[in-house]
Amino acid sequence: MRTSIATVCLSGTLVEKLHACARAGFDGVEIFEPDLVAAPESPEEIRALASRLGLTLDLYQPMRDVEGVDEAAFAEVLRRAEAKFALMQRLGMDLVLCCSNVGSATVDDDAVSASQLRRLGELAAGFGIRIAYEALAWGRYVDDYRRAWRIVELAAHPAVGVCLDSFHILSRGHDPAAIEQIPGERIFFVQLADAPAMTMDVLSWSRHHRLFPGEGSFDLAAFVAHVVRAGYTGPLSLEVFNDTFRQTDVRATAVHARRSLRWLEDATARRADTAGGLVRLTESAAPTGFDFAEIKAEDTSAIEVMLTQLGFTPRGRHRTKPVTLWSSGAARVVLNEQHAVGLSPHLAAIGLLVPEPALLTERARELGTPIAYRRTYAAEQVLDAAGAPDGTEIFWGAAAAGEPAWTTEFEHGTGAPADASPASGVVAIDHVSLTEPWQAVDEAVLFYTSVFGLEPVGSTEVASSQGLVQSRVMRSPGGEVRLPLNVVPAGFAQRSRDAGLAQHVAFRCTDARGLARAARARGLDVLPIPGNYYDDLVARFGLEPGFVAELQELGLLYDRDGEAEYLQFYTGIVGQLFCEFVERRAGYDGYGAGNAPVRLTAQGAGR
Amino acid sequence: MRTSIATVCLSGTLVEKLHACARAGFDGVEIFEPDLVAAPESPEEIRALASRLGLTLDLYQPMRDVEGVDEAAFAEVLRRAEAKFALMQRLGMDLVLCCSNVGSATVDDDAVSASQLRRLGELAAGFGIRIAYEALAWGRYVDDYRRAWRIVELAAHPAVGVCLDSFHILSRGHDPAAIEQIPGERIFFVQLADAPAMTMDVLSWSRHHRLFPGEGSFDLAAFVAHVVRAGYTGPLSLEVFNDTFRQTDVRATAVHARRSLRWLEDATARRADTAGGLVRLTESAAPTGFDFAEIKAEDTSAIEVMLTQLGFTPRGRHRTKPVTLWSSGAARVVLNEQHAVGLSPHLAAIGLLVPEPALLTERARELGTPIAYRRTYAAEQVLDAAGAPDGTEIFWGAAAAGEPAWTTEFEHGTGAPADASPASGVVAIDHVSLTEPWQAVDEAVLFYTSVFGLEPVGSTEVASSQGLVQSRVMRSPGGEVRLPLNVVPAGFAQRSRDAGLAQHVAFRCTDARGLARAARARGLDVLPIPGNYYDDLVARFGLEPGFVAELQELGLLYDRDGEAEYLQFYTGIVGQLFCEFVERRAGYDGYGAGNAPVRLTAQGAGR
Repeated sequence: MRTSIATVCLSGTLVEKLHACARAGFDGVEIFEPDLVAAPESPEEIRALASRLGLTLDLYQPMRDVEGVDEAAFAEVLRRAEAKFALMQRLGMDLVLCCSNVGSATVDDDAVSASQLRRLGELAAGFGIRIAYEALAWGRYVDDYRRAWRIVELAAHPAVGVCLDSFHILSRGHDPAAIEQIPGERIFFVQLADAPAMTMDVLSWSRHHRLFPGEGSFDLAAFVAHVVRAGYTGPLSLEVFNDTFRQTDVRATAVHARRSLRWLEDATARRADTAGGLVRLTESAAPTGFDFAEIKAEDTSAIEVMLTQLGFTPRGRHRTKPVTLWSSGAARVVLNEQHAVGLSPHLAAIGLLVPEPALLTERARELGTPIAYRRTYAAEQVLDAAGAPDGTEIFWGAAAAGEPAWTTEFEHGTGAPADASPASGVVAIDHVSLTEPWQAVDEAVLFYTSVFGLEPVGSTEVASSQGLVQSRVMRSPGGEVRLPLNVVPAGFAQRSRDAGLAQHVAFRCTDARGLARAARARGLDVLPIPGNYYDDLVARFGLEPGFVAELQELGLLYDRDGEAEYLQFYTGIVGQLFCEFVERRAGYDGYGAGNAPVRLTAQGAGR
Repeated sequence: MRTSIATVCLSGTLVEKLHACARAGFDGVEIFEPDLVAAPESPEEIRALASRLGLTLDLYQPMRDVEGVDEAAFAEVLRRAEAKFALMQRLGMDLVLCCSNVGSATVDDDAVSASQLRRLGELAAGFGIRIAYEALAWGRYVDDYRRAWRIVELAAHPAVGVCLDSFHILSRGHDPAAIEQIPGERIFFVQLADAPAMTMDVLSWSRHHRLFPGEGSFDLAAFVAHVVRAGYTGPLSLEVFNDTFRQTDVRATAVHARRSLRWLEDATARRADTAGGLVRLTESAAPTGFDFAEIKAEDTSAIEVMLTQLGFTPRGRHRTKPVTLWSSGAARVVLNEQHAVGLSPHLAAIGLLVPEPALLTERARELGTPIAYRRTYAAEQVLDAAGAPDGTEIFWGAAAAGEPAWTTEFEHGTGAPADASPASGVVAIDHVSLTEPWQAVDEAVLFYTSVFGLEPVGSTEVASSQGLVQSRVMRSPGGEVRLPLNVVPAGFAQRSRDAGLAQHVAFRCTDARGLARAARARGLDVLPIPGNYYDDLVARFGLEPGFVAELQELGLLYDRDGEAEYLQFYTGIVGQLFCEFVERRAGYDGYGAGNAPVRLTAQGAGR
């Protein structure tokens, strides 16, 4: 279907917005009136620019408070409307959004509203313009799309139809199924927005917290399916008011917005009965595990020391690059010193194992994801990668029975991989925690969902000494890949002691106490945990004192969920990251969130 | 009354919090358990530190889900409690907060809850500890302080009393008058928080949006009056969960918090029937006008050019400082090049006229406001000043019949002040818009309210091309002093073209068209306004075309509110500020908020 977006979704000037929408691949835009009023360009210039960029100007919006008024007020409505219709002619536009009356309505009567819409339609028709009437969720009398449609039916004028906005319908809990009873040609326009589940007044919710499709909790695929079945053939258009998107880079946001519509069209097409005419994405199965984690720095020696203490095997240097490979069990860590002058250790990339990498590459391209470049020589394995919204590169390669083929490019290593994992050693990467700027997290959720098929599972908040850190976990359906995304509070950027800013790689082991003991014997500095924590453990869980004493001796933290238990310990922060080691017992499925404030404070104290 | 604060209100480590609370003048603190658990210091060290700092440890909190459970669960409650009571003994603490059950309650029966609280009190008494039972607004069964008190009455144990929290009571709309029916000695503790009027679920409202007293919409003076009349003699303690305060500097927040309690005690004392024992602040009348605006820069020439174009009179140089005075009517602008190497023009200070400056100085000191230092020589006028939360200095001097005495310190000027204001010239400073970092605005509201007696009047949001700017206006009761505080979105800090970051001084005139015409003739660059704006003006207001053409020719913006009208024009941005010129007709009382997006976009385009 054709795609469109309201200019109010984006930051910048009107001209900047048009360029960004065209570049992101939108077919058209809705012109938000205040954007035009504030623009120095004349309507004729905007019209010509849109034409050169190949963008249609789909909808002029909004015209407010046009019906449900007394006749004196309606005369003023017609005067206003005539001026706006003349302006729309200069823009070459033929569709205007009229919202149900919020401010000036005094007459609660469908016949009156219909009569006024009909006369407004008559005036519009003289300019070659049509009117799309929309029920706002907080309209004074008309706040339900079904009533808006009744009024449009009564108006019975070819220039008067309805506009359907998913937010206004789904936020009120109205059943969208009745959309199918509206003839498709009477649906003049469709606006889409997602939103998180929230309990707050619907106006504030709408103005500040809308999200692009796929980022919130509305079932927009079902919504669009109703629209398609009704016979609507116009564009799917985004109207998303959000405090964040108004501040972020207009070009990145436009790409992100376009991706959400592409994903939504596919999700709608998956409902078999609406497949006709909708474009599908290439199907790509979700990842089945972590391939590697890549840590980059000018000098990675500090990480090498740490990996040695943890029993990792040095697997040698890459044939052509200053890159080394370390492994323990199925956990592979790549240390990269290429193009890293001045950089301290940080997580630069993660690799995922997928059944068919080529399909994922195709899908990523269809979703407008730039594929990252890595210099590759003949006979070297090519892994494709995409840049995540936080800047981390996500690679994907083929899952295989043994080690992946790219590992053979490393030379002069010691030890065979199978020997490298003693009973108490690391067996795999358990999860990787990424740090998301607050502006990027909604985009990140859509990125991991739409491209990789990960699923968002809940959201928690962790109190640190420098602010609340919101954590949202993305995971593969089977749980093999887990990416907690930690959202950094705005204030963090200006501060120094910010453990909350660090990324981390968590390795799974089968005996956390054994691993901690062995690593400490080899000199590892385990993050020190305060004694008060262990006193509290005893009070909370009633654990056996000898067990708690051992946890305290080793610096281990503990959590319990029913019968399931979690043991974890941490390194201090090296550069911009740290490592965690976890033992999951009896199917423990969390991340020890209750321990996070203690860890954050301990890391802050050590800096 | 004694003052206390929960450590959860502040950022930093527990030790940092204790130091900040002591320095800000608090008498005691509530220990928030997770702060202690995460601290490396032993309970004995915390106890000793608090003792050295002169802080009492008033309340250990929270203990959750202790009553309304079956007997098996209650055995576990007693086990947990015993461990915590032992810990409290190590801290030397004797009061613990028990919240009404949220998570594990299964028995909705006052007699059962009372019996369990009695047994818990019996256990506590053995440790010399008392229990303050509090109804949470979202308690499973007990969510009303009146029911909590009934249960405490039934428990009938000397170690069991109630804790009253203003948020839990006022957020639910419960009448606080019944507090007076509780014997004062049974009120073991009182926690205070303000909050903005919001429609959202009470748990999120409580966790993220509490404010210090005087910053929100609760009538806390009435609340505390009830508590005092009940005979309560313990501390007034702040428990304010707020995402912002958790991120701001702990020392500044502690001073700010202490000021809110000092202000609240005074506000409570003003209710004649509760005056006994409460400490009053020095009374100081609100300001009656602007004295001056001070603009500081290494080189203020660009501002001098602008003021000349606007018809200001150069009043000469200060006797001892590189400072000049310019005036037009009652509008005085001080240009300051002292200690300004490398600084671009910015608003450094504003002066206010008050009836009795010495009283205001005394009041400011009582509220913990640091008085700013300015070098003053013999025979020079001393003006006291306080640093506002955004860094601007606020001076105050005596209102007088003619010009204030300090103006005589300027020499070699031209023209007498009375001649300096032609019919179309500037007559006064109308308002000064300050730019508030998002972290500082709540503190700023309390600062201007409590110290200066300004009143907050509403809040609006202005869409700019780089994000929403929230604007909150502080004004004197008579309207002579108006300070719109513009809250900068977090994202602005990283961006360049940020008109939203600029401060501005708005001057009032009686003929904006005449002033604009004269200033343009003298070469002033008036901010250019797009033609689309004037097309929209015609559509919106149906104005006479000749009038709109004149507005457009001169770059004037227009607003109307009933019969009242507003004309305004702007300069471009110079350094970090710009100037506005306004004509208020027929008592127009606003600021042309609808024009702000156009102005912001125009200023962004010109940078």
